Amino acid sequence: MSIRNLLGQTSEWLRGTGPNADIVMSSRIRLARNLDALAFSHWASKRQEREVLTRSEAAFAASKILKGSILIHMNDISDLDKQFLLERHLVSREQIVRPEFKAVAISDREMISIMVNEEDHLRSQVMQSGFALQEGWRIANQLDNELSVTLPFAFDPHWGYLTACPTNTGTGMRASVMLHLPALVMTKQVNRVIQAITKLGMVVRGLYGEGTDAEGNLFQVSNQITLGQSEPETIDHIERIIRQIIGHEENARKQLIKQNRELLYDKIWRALGVLKNAYIITSKETIHHLSMVRLGADLGVLPEFGRKDVNELFILTQPAHLQRMDGKLLSQSERDIKRALLIRQKLGGN
Amino acid sequence: MSIRNLLGQTSEWLRGTGPNADIVMSSRIRLARNLDALAFSHWASKRQEREVLTRSEAAFAASKILKGSILIHMNDISDLDKQFLLERHLVSREQIVRPEFKAVAISDREMISIMVNEEDHLRSQVMQSGFALQEGWRIANQLDNELSVTLPFAFDPHWGYLTACPTNTGTGMRASVMLHLPALVMTKQVNRVIQAITKLGMVVRGLYGEGTDAEGNLFQVSNQITLGQSEPETIDHIERIIRQIIGHEENARKQLIKQNRELLYDKIWRALGVLKNAYIITSKETIHHLSMVRLGADLGVLPEFGRKDVNELFILTQPAHLQRMDGKLLSQSERDIKRALLIRQKLGGN
Repeated sequence: MSIRNLLGQTSEWLRGTGPNADIVMSSRIRLARNLDALAFSHWASKRQEREVLTRSEAAFAASKILKGSILIHMNDISDLDKQFLLERHLVSREQIVRPEFKAVAISDREMISIMVNEEDHLRSQVMQSGFALQEGWRIANQLDNELSVTLPFAFDPHWGYLTACPTNTGTGMRASVMLHLPALVMTKQVNRVIQAITKLGMVVRGLYGEGTDAEGNLFQVSNQITLGQSEPETIDHIERIIRQIIGHEENARKQLIKQNRELLYDKIWRALGVLKNAYIITSKETIHHLSMVRLGADLGVLPEFGRKDVNELFILTQPAHLQRMDGKLLSQSERDIKRALLIRQKLGGN
Repeated sequence: MSIRNLLGQTSEWLRGTGPNADIVMSSRIRLARNLDALAFSHWASKRQEREVLTRSEAAFAASKILKGSILIHMNDISDLDKQFLLERHLVSREQIVRPEFKAVAISDREMISIMVNEEDHLRSQVMQSGFALQEGWRIANQLDNELSVTLPFAFDPHWGYLTACPTNTGTGMRASVMLHLPALVMTKQVNRVIQAITKLGMVVRGLYGEGTDAEGNLFQVSNQITLGQSEPETIDHIERIIRQIIGHEENARKQLIKQNRELLYDKIWRALGVLKNAYIITSKETIHHLSMVRLGADLGVLPEFGRKDVNELFILTQPAHLQRMDGKLLSQSERDIKRALLIRQKLGGN
C-alpha cells in the first residue's frame, strides 16, 4: 500500500458506526513516547534524529499490530501530500514543517498512525469510529507493549513517561473524542457546557485541533491531565463527562424537535438543498451544511443518507483531497467549483 | 364571479407568454379620467364621491368589454381582501385607505381593472403578459370609448384630459412594462441603464410601484410625460427604449453564460435548492430566489419549470394570498412556514 491508496478508502474512524455514533464522530487515543538517552526532538542533533527514525522503523517492522502498514518519510512527499495527510488527521501541523527525518507510519484503514520526530520522538494515535475509548486504549496499549520490546522508552518510576512538554509527562496519553453538537449550538447551550467541562480538566478544540474553530459544530474534547492518574482512570473520567455531554445534546435535539421543528427542518433541508445544488462552494460553507445534513441523517429526517457518506465528505471536500482526486494543483476558485461538483455527485444532486 | 374566485385563477398578465416574455414580464396601460363638473376625489364632497361611484357603476354595466366583470366596493371587504387585491396589482395603496365610496371593477382574468374614486375619479388599467403595449392600448382605448358614451370626461381642447395631479394631464396615460433584469443586476450595469433611461423621460420603480425596491430584479418602467404627445407617440417612444433595455439584458445574459457560467449556475440552482427545501422563508427571500429560478427557466438551465409557474409564485407567496388560501389570518412566522410549504408543493420539493 502507498499514500496513493489512501484516497480510495474510508478511514476506520469515519465509518459512522460504533457506540453513540450519532453524537460521537470518533474516539482517539494518543501516546507520547521518547527514546531513552536521546535528546527530545527540538533539541536533537541531526544524527540523533536519524537514529530515532532508524530505530523506530525497525521497531515498526517487527510489530505484529503494524503488519501491512506503510511508512512515509515526510521528506519524500510533496507539499500537497503533506496537506493531504494533515486533512486525514494522520499527521499534525508540526509534522509537515521542517520534514527532514520526520516520518509517519500508517496502519491498515488508518486505525493507527505513528508520527516520528514530531514534538516527541514517537506520537502514536489510535482512531476509532464512535465512542470507543476503551477499545482504542486496548489497541494503543498493545502497540505500546510491542514497540517497547525494542525501543527503550524514557520512563521515570516517579514521573512516568518523560515527554518534551511537561503537560504530557506521566501517562503521555491524550484521550479525545470528536463530538457533533449541533443542537447544543443551535439552542445556545454549548458555551455553558464547554465552560463546565473545562473546569473538570477537559480541553475543548475544533475539528483540526489546537487553535481551530468548532466548524461544523464539531468539538474535540480531551483530557488535560496526564500526571497522577492511570490511563484507565483518565479514560474513565473523560468517559463519564462525555456521557453527560451526550445526554445534553440528546435533550437539546429532543427539545428542538418538540419546540422548534420547522426551524430544525428548515436548517437541515436547506443545507441539503444547497449542497445538492451549488456549483461553487467553499470548504467552510460545506462543513457548515454537512453538519446539518449529518444531524438530519441522525434524526431520521433525511433517511436516505448514511452517516458514513456525510463523514467522508467532511474529509474529501478538503483542499488537498480535491487536488489529489483531480491529480493536479487547483486554485481556490477551481477548488470551490470542484468541491461543489463532488458534493453534487456524492449526494445525488442536479 | 366574486373576489373568492380570483385566488384560483391565473391573471392574464402572469401567463408568461407574449413577445419577449423572457425579459418583459408584463405590459400595462393606465388611463386617468375624471367626470366633468365634479370636484377631483381629494376635494370632492361625500355626495360628489357617491355620484361618481353611481354613474361609474352604470357605465361599467353598459360596457361590452366589461361584460362578466365584477365590481367590488372597498367598504364591503376585509382588510385582508384589500391587501389581496393590492398584491394582485388590481388596486393601489391609495385605494385601500379611506375605503368609503371607493370601488374597483375587475374584468375576466383580471385583464382590465378600474379603480373608482382613487386620485382621479377613474383609473383604468389594462394588463398584458409580455411586451404588448400596443395591444394594451387598443383595449384601453376601446374601454375609454365605451365609457365616454355615458360618462362626460373632463377634457380641455388645449390641455387634453384634466387630472387631479398635473403630471397626468394630457393623455392621462401611463404606459409601463415590468422588466426582469437579473443579468444587468448581476453584471452591475443596471444603474447605468436606469440613469440613461431616466434622462429619456422614463420613470423606474420596483414591483409594487412608487417608493418600492426593485426586489426580485423586477423593474417597472413607465413614461414620465403625458403632455404634448399623442398616446401612440408615447407608446412608440417607450417601446423603442424598452427594446434597447431588452438588448442590454440579452447581452448581459450571454456574457454571463460565456464568462461566468459557474457563478450563474450556482445562483440559479442554489435558488431552486433553497425554494424546494426551505421550511421557513420570508417574502423577500422568496422573490429573490424566484427571480433566479425564472432566469434559469428562461435560459433553459431549468427546463422543467415554466415561466407561468414562477410568475404565479411571485404573487401567490405574498402575505394576503397565503392567508386567503388558508382561510384565516396568520402571524408573520406562520406565514413564513406556510409560504415555504406552498413553494415546496408547487416546485415539487421534499
